[in-house]
Parts: sequence; C-alpha cells; structure tokens
Amino acid sequence: MAFKDTFIHFIHELQDAICSGLEEADGLKKFVEDAWSRPEGGGGKTRVLSGGNVIEKGGVNTSIVHGEVTDLMRKQLKMEGHHWFACGLSLVIHPSNPFVPTVHCNYRLFELYNEDNTLADRWFGGGTDLTPYYLDTTDVVHFHNVYKKACDRFDPEFYSRFKLQCDGYFVNWHRNEERRGLGGIFYDFCREEGDRDANFWLGLAKACGFGFLEAYLPLIDKNKNKPFSEANKHWQEIRRGRYTEFNLVHDRGTLFGLKTNGRIESILMSLPPTVRFEYDYQPLAGSPEAELLDACLHPRDWLGLQKNI
Amino acid sequence: MAFKDTFIHFIHELQDAICSGLEEADGLKKFVEDAWSRPEGGGGKTRVLSGGNVIEKGGVNTSIVHGEVTDLMRKQLKMEGHHWFACGLSLVIHPSNPFVPTVHCNYRLFELYNEDNTLADRWFGGGTDLTPYYLDTTDVVHFHNVYKKACDRFDPEFYSRFKLQCDGYFVNWHRNEERRGLGGIFYDFCREEGDRDANFWLGLAKACGFGFLEAYLPLIDKNKNKPFSEANKHWQEIRRGRYTEFNLVHDRGTLFGLKTNGRIESILMSLPPTVRFEYDYQPLAGSPEAELLDACLHPRDWLGLQKNI
Repeated sequence: MAFKDTFIHFIHELQDAICSGLEEADGLKKFVEDAWSRPEGGGGKTRVLSGGNVIEKGGVNTSIVHGEVTDLMRKQLKMEGHHWFACGLSLVIHPSNPFVPTVHCNYRLFELYNEDNTLADRWFGGGTDLTPYYLDTTDVVHFHNVYKKACDRFDPEFYSRFKLQCDGYFVNWHRNEERRGLGGIFYDFCREEGDRDANFWLGLAKACGFGFLEAYLPLIDKNKNKPFSEANKHWQEIRRGRYTEFNLVHDRGTLFGLKTNGRIESILMSLPPTVRFEYDYQPLAGSPEAELLDACLHPRDWLGLQKNI
Repeated sequence: MAFKDTFIHFIHELQDAICSGLEEADGLKKFVEDAWSRPEGGGGKTRVLSGGNVIEKGGVNTSIVHGEVTDLMRKQLKMEGHHWFACGLSLVIHPSNPFVPTVHCNYRLFELYNEDNTLADRWFGGGTDLTPYYLDTTDVVHFHNVYKKACDRFDPEFYSRFKLQCDGYFVNWHRNEERRGLGGIFYDFCREEGDRDANFWLGLAKACGFGFLEAYLPLIDKNKNKPFSEANKHWQEIRRGRYTEFNLVHDRGTLFGLKTNGRIESILMSLPPTVRFEYDYQPLAGSPEAELLDACLHPRDWLGLQKNI
C-alpha cells in the first residue's frame, strides 16, 4: 500500500471516530454526509451537523485531492514539481452555548511528484486549537495537557514549539495581534529526516488526531448545560466575528481553497452560524469578556513550562 | 487653494449633506462622530448610526491620509513616487428591514508626489452600488437612472462603461461569479487628459456624490414600513454573509487598509450588523429569494440600453 493510502485510511478512521464521539455528546442530531468530487481530480466527504443540542453548526470533513502544479502554485507557493497530492481531515465545531468553546483541527499530508511520478517532496501538517468565549483556566489547561501528552511521545520539545507556532498563526494581524482564541498546537512543513520517517509523522498525526475527543468532550460535558444570558450570546457572536475575520482575511488554507477552485461549501463550513459586527465594540473593563480578550491579546504559558528555565 | 483642498472641502460637504438626509429618513437616531488621527499622517471623521428606525448599522466616513511610498506599495501597487496623499468619502448603510436595500458608495482622490514635492500622478475613483435582498425592478431602475443622468452630463458613454465596471468589480469570484448585489457605477484610475482636467473629474464626483440622496431615499420611503417575516430576515442575513465574504476576501480597499495600518474600526464599519453562514444554503426554486440570486448571478441591462444596438 502506498504511504498516501495509509494516511487516507487514517483520516477516514479518524473522521468516523470523531463524528461518533461528537454525535454521542450532542445527543440530538447526527452528521449528514455530502460526498463530492472535483473536476480537476479527487473529492471528499463533508459531514455537517447543525441545530443540535450542543452543536449549533459543525463540520468534520475529509478531502483527497490532486492535480498538476500550476504556474500560480510555482509562484505563490514556491513548489517545485510536476503534480501534487493532498489529503487531510479538517473540523470546526461551533457550539450554541457560549460557555462551550469553539474548536478547530486539521491533519494533512502533501506530496509532490516529478514528471516520471517519482516522489519529489512530502510534508505533514496539523494542529488543534481552542476558541473559548469565556476564560476557564482549568478547561484550557486540560486541553493543552492532552496535546502535550500526545506530543511528548514523539519529542519532548514538540509541544512547546507547536504551541508557540499556534500562537503565531491564528492571529488577527489587523487587530493589534489579537489571537483568534487560546491556542493549542500547530505544525507544518514537517519532512522526513533521519529516523523521523513518514510513519513517525503519521504517528504524531494519529496521536494528536485521536486525542481530540479526550481534549474536547470534557469541555462539552462540563459546560453544555450552563445557563446563559442574551449578553453572553451577544459576546459569543462578536467573537465569532473575529473568527470570521481571521478565516477570510488571514487563513492560508481558506484563501488557497478559494483561489484554486476548492469546494466552496466545504471550505466555508468553518464560518460561524450567526455573527455580529459592531462598530468599535469594547467589553467593559474588568468584565469576564475583557478577561477573555486579554488572554487573546497576550498568549499565556498555560502549562507553566517556562517557570523552570 | 491646492486642488486637493478643494476635493477635501467637497467630501466634507457631501458627508454633512448625506448624514442630514439619512438622519431625516431614519427619523429616530443621529450619526455619532469619531474623529481620529493616524500616527503616519492624516486622519478622518467616522460617523456611525446604529439601532435606528430604518438603519440597523450605517457609517458615512471621510478620511484624509498621506505618507511615504513604501516598498510594499511600489511592489504591490506599482506606484512610482516618493510620497502620496489620499482622501475620500465612503459609506455603507445596512437597513433593518429586508425590503430596503443595502447601499455603498465611495468617492476618492489619490495623488503621488516626487521627492521635490511636485505632482507625479493624480487619479480619481468612485462609485455607488445597490445590494437589495429582494428584487424590485422599479427600484433598481430608478437607482441606475439617477447615476445615468449624473454621468450623462459628463460623457454619454460613462454610465454604460461604469455600470459594466461595477458588475465586474463587486464579484464573489469564489461563488461562481455571483455579484454582491445589483450594481450601479464604479470607476477608478481616471486621470487628467486633454480638456478633462481635475475639475472635470471633481465635477463627476460631485454629480454622483450629491446624487446619492435622490437615488436612495425613495427606496427607504417606499419600503421601510413593509411588514417582513423571520424568513425574510433570515434571507437578509444569509445575503449579508456574501457581503462579508466579498469585503474580507476580495475588496481592494478593505485589504489595502488592513495591510497598511489603516483605522480598523472605520474600515470594518462596512460589515453588516448580524450575519448568518449556513452550509450549502439554497433558496427554493421559483421563490423571491431565488429570483434575487439569479439577478446577482446574471447582471442585467436595467435601463435597456443595449436593445438599440
């Protein structure tokens, strides 16, 4: 079996496992699948759940696409090669209760080939990040701990490095470097090197990917029945506006998809169900809303790893 | 008086006139002004009205900014010069009633100077476009007619040319070339040439700019009290999602502002107050919603100007 088929098998298993876990946690609705194919090659399985008990709008998508390296890709992405292959799982969950955080994850493989079909390059990317509307330090620490534990099995430096990359990626640069949320892990362009072969990076994606339910379901269970006010929902929708701004203005994956004839509905599945944009909205000083905003502006060392240095 | 001061005087007069006219039409709320200045030079007057009787969220902004030509501007905008000046009026009105269209307009002047302060280049741009949620052909024809009349005073070919440019600019390229709305006029990079001096282009901006109230107020008066259902509001919020997508993904002015330390709150004032993003939303075939969508996908010759050819 070609390595890429092993990775495809993994993302489909992961998609099934995550959808089952989330359906059980939601308790009301099931994911509905849209299978699609792409004229240029490949296709995907988009699974969407909306109007659930917990999940207001969520998608867990896999896609397997391939094509020729175009001049645009050569120029903008500096890719050297004749044709390419990409596959991955991508999910975004927007809960209805403002005390349950939004979550995103993505695990992917990219391969480039020479004209004679030999492999020219291969890299791995992935990550999972949390976007709460209210700060609950216990929740954030739990979430980060799951990924530290998963990463530590591969390299004790991975978590700290990937956590920093996450804080450096999900940034609304146009808003004074305000982060989209409270981070997690993010890695990209990981290549085979020495004894870190393709299976090593597959192993990391599996450990982090299958860690998702352990990281996220307890946050649903703990918070899903908390009562919330209109003001809480209003704040959630304001923050969802920032989420929308990041995804449409800065996210490399979204923009690449929009400009290369990706499947629009699967790409924009990530956008929140209801959103507000208000002129110069500022939370009250000292409020829980201001506390969350401060944590987005100044990323924290959630696991206290720097104190030993 | 330097020509640019004449243009500044014009945009401030226009801002006052439009704000007065809209306040009268709203009948409940007044615009609130935020004057701001920019560390790199210049500033503006942002005027916002929200929660009105007619206007759910609207802004009528002027800005007057200047600075050095940076390497980024040289590279991305192909600007040759040492320093630059820009001023303009920009407005977006998002009404609460889905039967009142959203409207946008912008009139601007750009100047480039050599190191010795002599003028190196100067150009004008502008336009006004309508984004209804339901198709009322009479309204759209009225709106286009006002701008045809204004343009005809300057060149009988302007309206047709600017109408086509408008249809070619406000396009969600990632959505099968769906337009943001039903058009209007759009012009850019208009330079002095022959007897078309700076005052000619100022005259055009004045005719179109001061035509705004004639073009838009009748659409408020006619539609503001029409009863609407939750389904009508829902559709308005879906279409506002497309408006958000255009502004954040494609609009040159917005992206230029976000990437050059523009005043974020004034730039993003254009985003609608409440928005919905739903997976693969499709209006029912034959419905009024589908009729509007069709007009966005296939721009029409509202004034029947092509039939004589």
